[in-house]
Amino acid sequence: MATAEFPARPRIAIIGSGAVGCYYGGRLAQHGEDVHFLMRSDLPTVHQSGLEVRSVQGSFHLATPHVYGSTEEIGPCDLVIITLKTTANHALPQLLPPLIKDNTLLLTVQNGLGNEAFLAQHFDPERVLGGLCFVCINRLAPGVIDHQAQGQVSVGEISGPPQPRTRALAALFAKCHIPCRAAESLMAERWKKLVWNIPYNGLSIAAGGINTAAIMADAKLRALTEGLMEEVVATARALGHTLPDDVIPKHLTATLGMGPYWPSSVLDYLAGREVEVDSIWGEPLRAAQAAGVATPRLEMLHALLCSQTEQAAKNAGGKR
Amino acid sequence: MATAEFPARPRIAIIGSGAVGCYYGGRLAQHGEDVHFLMRSDLPTVHQSGLEVRSVQGSFHLATPHVYGSTEEIGPCDLVIITLKTTANHALPQLLPPLIKDNTLLLTVQNGLGNEAFLAQHFDPERVLGGLCFVCINRLAPGVIDHQAQGQVSVGEISGPPQPRTRALAALFAKCHIPCRAAESLMAERWKKLVWNIPYNGLSIAAGGINTAAIMADAKLRALTEGLMEEVVATARALGHTLPDDVIPKHLTATLGMGPYWPSSVLDYLAGREVEVDSIWGEPLRAAQAAGVATPRLEMLHALLCSQTEQAAKNAGGKR
Repeated sequence: MATAEFPARPRIAIIGSGAVGCYYGGRLAQHGEDVHFLMRSDLPTVHQSGLEVRSVQGSFHLATPHVYGSTEEIGPCDLVIITLKTTANHALPQLLPPLIKDNTLLLTVQNGLGNEAFLAQHFDPERVLGGLCFVCINRLAPGVIDHQAQGQVSVGEISGPPQPRTRALAALFAKCHIPCRAAESLMAERWKKLVWNIPYNGLSIAAGGINTAAIMADAKLRALTEGLMEEVVATARALGHTLPDDVIPKHLTATLGMGPYWPSSVLDYLAGREVEVDSIWGEPLRAAQAAGVATPRLEMLHALLCSQTEQAAKNAGGKR
Repeated sequence: MATAEFPARPRIAIIGSGAVGCYYGGRLAQHGEDVHFLMRSDLPTVHQSGLEVRSVQGSFHLATPHVYGSTEEIGPCDLVIITLKTTANHALPQLLPPLIKDNTLLLTVQNGLGNEAFLAQHFDPERVLGGLCFVCINRLAPGVIDHQAQGQVSVGEISGPPQPRTRALAALFAKCHIPCRAAESLMAERWKKLVWNIPYNGLSIAAGGINTAAIMADAKLRALTEGLMEEVVATARALGHTLPDDVIPKHLTATLGMGPYWPSSVLDYLAGREVEVDSIWGEPLRAAQAAGVATPRLEMLHALLCSQTEQAAKNAGGKR
């Protein structure tokens, strides 16, 4: 399948129409691609009023996007872009089959680690690709997305260098004004992103509901951020992934430049939504333990986040 | 002063009439000792209705305890028992002088580490003794204390073995049905108690507002508890304090036996009151760092608690 030709105008399904799905699916549709959105809560609103994307890189409105309430209605596609929250991964084995035909590619651009492996367990691993989105984005209301900064994407094979299909995917995104490159090593890129997500997404919750600027302004939390980053880098290297020597100072400098940014996890947490604890902290921790790397801070952060989110769910159950 | 005779019926001031002050001061007064309470918010209620102690070891009511709004009104005493929250220690240099005469002893039974040292900085170190209270106790309402379990006290010299005055103090407590012993090493006892307080008081907050039974029922939090205990034990030993070999398993077993206990710190946190972060976590962490002991979990817990309590204070300021 890796050698099958990628169609010139693929039929594309977006599975999980939160901020990421609506933004990237919206950009693709804006530039004439054949995009079909699976929606749940936002379906009636978007059906009636369309999809609005307010973006630092050019706002736009799709008056009549193709939106559906089930994958059966969408039917077979050439490309399925999975933007579901990882806490809903358990639904994928039921959700995806109606979308799949001979050459269908499954591209997960979800957060954290383990999503490609999960898809490869339940579907033909040859179909599965992964991507990373570097984007500051929020869903303001049903059908209204706010794109604040960045937006670039990396796509890659589960293992090994880019194939013709990977480059075709990258070209598809680029054609629609989404900066995209084919990653030489998808897993190395995932770990590089985890070096950022593990401390900032985690501490923004565990330190009491704060943003990245507050973390950086607190000497103790900043030191802890660096300690966590060192553990993640050590794990990635033990697993054989090559990270740039200056990955930590680069991340720190970039974060200072972002100002008071609220990672998606803390927004989820504060809004009483599920947090992607297992994909962002659980799976990397298991990888570290399997590799025999000591990660006391990551282990502690994971334990605290598991308990904090469990308590938040209980409180929400009681109050709402 | 260490050799001055301790009077048969000392004049006693209780500084800080929260649960601990009211319970121990109440027990002393119940058995005929000359006890004078400094009170703030509870003063009018206790003045009118007395002090009620509901206790597993025998409830009692003091109809007309000696209560005061200032230390000037109390005047010179033989023994000053300091039960103030450590977050209010900054007030002691102004608060204590009216209570002090030639042979006055200052006994701090406050939580955590550094309270004797603080007193010794501001007053004659020869006056200063320390004590530990092992007690499950709550203030239900102004003037109403709930004593649920335990109650024993250790008193000791800042350094070195008990002196005649230490034994006299222990005898005073014991005479009033408060099990008390003179500690061979006060600091070793403080560290032994910190082996419990650091994980349980800390994780009960940092893991989302939970009790000791919930910590023990969560395999990850229990492992973290043991990891924190090991760091505290290593620090105490590096500082030259002798702790029992089985201090960790003993603490774990005792905690399982306590059922769902809410440490005072998490009660403070959940009620929006100040948490004794510096005396329970900050001072022990500084001691570990000065001794060159690696305590990554304690360092992380301290950083998170500082930030969480700061956020809680901000939220309280905004909402209340």
